Amino acid sequence: MPVDQGLRLAESVSETRQWDRLMELARIGAIPGDGVNRQALTALDRQARRLMIAWAEEAGATVSVDDAANLWFRVEGRIPGATPLLTGSHMDSQPAGGRFDGIYGVMAGLEILCALKDSGLTLDRPLEVVAWTNEEGSRFAPGCMGSMAWAGTKPLAAFAETRDAEGIRFADALAEQLAAEADLPRRPLGGQAHAYIEAHIEQGPKLETEALDIGVVTGIQGSRWLTVTITGASAHAGTTPVSLRRDAMQATMRAIAALNTLTADPTDVLRFTVGSLTVEPGSSNSVAGMVRFTIDLRHPDAVVLAAIGDAVAATVAEAALPCVATIEERFSAAPLDFDADLVTAVREAAETLGQSWSLMPSGAFHDAQLVAGAVPSAMIFVPSRAGISHNPAEFTSAAQLAAGTRVLAAALASQSRVTN
Amino acid sequence: MPVDQGLRLAESVSETRQWDRLMELARIGAIPGDGVNRQALTALDRQARRLMIAWAEEAGATVSVDDAANLWFRVEGRIPGATPLLTGSHMDSQPAGGRFDGIYGVMAGLEILCALKDSGLTLDRPLEVVAWTNEEGSRFAPGCMGSMAWAGTKPLAAFAETRDAEGIRFADALAEQLAAEADLPRRPLGGQAHAYIEAHIEQGPKLETEALDIGVVTGIQGSRWLTVTITGASAHAGTTPVSLRRDAMQATMRAIAALNTLTADPTDVLRFTVGSLTVEPGSSNSVAGMVRFTIDLRHPDAVVLAAIGDAVAATVAEAALPCVATIEERFSAAPLDFDADLVTAVREAAETLGQSWSLMPSGAFHDAQLVAGAVPSAMIFVPSRAGISHNPAEFTSAAQLAAGTRVLAAALASQSRVTN
Repeated sequence: MPVDQGLRLAESVSETRQWDRLMELARIGAIPGDGVNRQALTALDRQARRLMIAWAEEAGATVSVDDAANLWFRVEGRIPGATPLLTGSHMDSQPAGGRFDGIYGVMAGLEILCALKDSGLTLDRPLEVVAWTNEEGSRFAPGCMGSMAWAGTKPLAAFAETRDAEGIRFADALAEQLAAEADLPRRPLGGQAHAYIEAHIEQGPKLETEALDIGVVTGIQGSRWLTVTITGASAHAGTTPVSLRRDAMQATMRAIAALNTLTADPTDVLRFTVGSLTVEPGSSNSVAGMVRFTIDLRHPDAVVLAAIGDAVAATVAEAALPCVATIEERFSAAPLDFDADLVTAVREAAETLGQSWSLMPSGAFHDAQLVAGAVPSAMIFVPSRAGISHNPAEFTSAAQLAAGTRVLAAALASQSRVTN
Repeated sequence: MPVDQGLRLAESVSETRQWDRLMELARIGAIPGDGVNRQALTALDRQARRLMIAWAEEAGATVSVDDAANLWFRVEGRIPGATPLLTGSHMDSQPAGGRFDGIYGVMAGLEILCALKDSGLTLDRPLEVVAWTNEEGSRFAPGCMGSMAWAGTKPLAAFAETRDAEGIRFADALAEQLAAEADLPRRPLGGQAHAYIEAHIEQGPKLETEALDIGVVTGIQGSRWLTVTITGASAHAGTTPVSLRRDAMQATMRAIAALNTLTADPTDVLRFTVGSLTVEPGSSNSVAGMVRFTIDLRHPDAVVLAAIGDAVAATVAEAALPCVATIEERFSAAPLDFDADLVTAVREAAETLGQSWSLMPSGAFHDAQLVAGAVPSAMIFVPSRAGISHNPAEFTSAAQLAAGTRVLAAALASQSRVTN
């Protein structure tokens, strides 16, 4: 498709329709403060998918679902048998999430399907829009299960026994979702694609701070997710002298302080987060016998990430004494560079559309990180107000979202020509 | 009752019967490692009470229950209208508790009822054994609700809206208990008594360390229970630079470190415990937006307790910046001195029975602390192996428990004579 056709497709993107539909979806699982709690494989997730399916069918797409409950919308291209272009993201939210994280990328793909229909344009290649299952990992850890299973990074069966906080197995939640969507055609996991481009909110402050429209994402920093269990001895809070305690809570304080020192980074690039912590027995008048907490560690440099991550166990073990610390690594993803040609295509699309842009790495991980193992991939960021995300206050304006979708449309169109 | 009759009553205490019954009770709510999880106003609590009621009736006691579900066993004395002697403790356990905390004191009272029957002795005064409701405070905070309501420290209605972790109201749980025990005669809350003596495990290491049989308890250190809420801003763990976060978890680390400094005590008398901590949203890849944790602070000196407790709010508020900290005081009990004559009576009973003893304050709070506001009170401690309590490993030998019950019998007997 020549550049002017990419421009025409971009011009057919409707800022209003996209925004109104995002707001309609945000009512499903709405929480106070404009937030959304719509976690993976829940009834609310299914309700949101039904709405999206109706819009996709209205746009002339065929709908299908795969064994990981990834949801697919497809429109055919002009060239029979051509490998498809792929775009999308995820529809699940954090427990106290916002209205844009994930769902924007799926909506941008849907809006391009609508723009194709409205403009009467046809791409050479088929276009597929996908909503990946359980990107967030907040209900079932780790995240990105759907894209991992599709890309072949891990077999779907590897997640079967994972349980949510209520003890529900992932395999059972998945089976419930598939049963509820048994009316949809089933497609196999995996497959070929020519290119994958994912649009997403930045979830950081860079674009807003530098007053830019578009982040041309060069890659994704690496992540390591660890769980630390510190075991002491529960005892009576009133009678046990402090000097004689093996207090798992105090050991945790020392461990986190030591980890703060280990992860201290004057350049403020390394991200170290303890986001979850549970105590047993958890009684106000009992010394803690056991504390379990999570570590989320991220850095764009594989060498730094490996060195810091590998030092966690010894750091925690020493700080926790006389309590005993054990470490489990739940998830790790190496830093990734996106496909250079596709990054260039995104940059050129932004330039063609007159959008200001910057090359930048992604601070968050995304389904694109997994898809990139199977398909040339890239990402497009739009600004996040105050860099806030994973929070009800998450916000990107309708115009900013539409600009991102237009760049996505033009970038996808640029990859549509079948050259062989 | 002359001393030799107190001796005869003490000699009728059966070490074996008392131990066997404690072990039978420990099967109700048994948890791994010889522990017990039998919290207040649960089905397990009611099951244990039924067993105790059967034994009390077998010993010839009349059974009744008051509006706070305190459970009463009474045998009449020789002198009509004499105010009763009172003994007892509580039957509820910590979530991961042991086999002796609380239940021993009720069992010791029951054993003395049996000893009275077996010996054919009759005290001048009625003897009442009471099991106070919800001493532990681990299901419904604060603890000692039953004894507070009985002693008039707080009206029962003050606890009605307190909820457990599952959202159940105290008033509803209490109503359920009273309905299940509607076959028992109801007696009014409150009343007069001549003296209250409570037997309990020490829950600390002093008696074992000094190879003593009996702790003659002089008083109870004061307690202050606070809840701290630290509010920051939840954000994405991967994208939000550490320097820009308002991380409630890291603020909590700083607050607890500052509290450790505030409460540092080279004499190891002050007890500072953070036993419960919850995080919101509690997702491993979200910066914590809110942390709530408990403080349990105890000291035998009212001045010290007031000074440290009053300094908590400012200490936490400063350390938590830029997060915001709020403090709620859930419970406070001033240090208490027991009735001097009754303490002497306990000491003399120990001496008469040839038991080694030491005067000591109580590190834990007990129902006696509340009862003392209405009735002259004292306590008897027996050793706790390694000082361990609020833990399945809690242990006192059958012989040590029997020694305590014999001292309790002799001490109660010494208070039986009606002199006016």
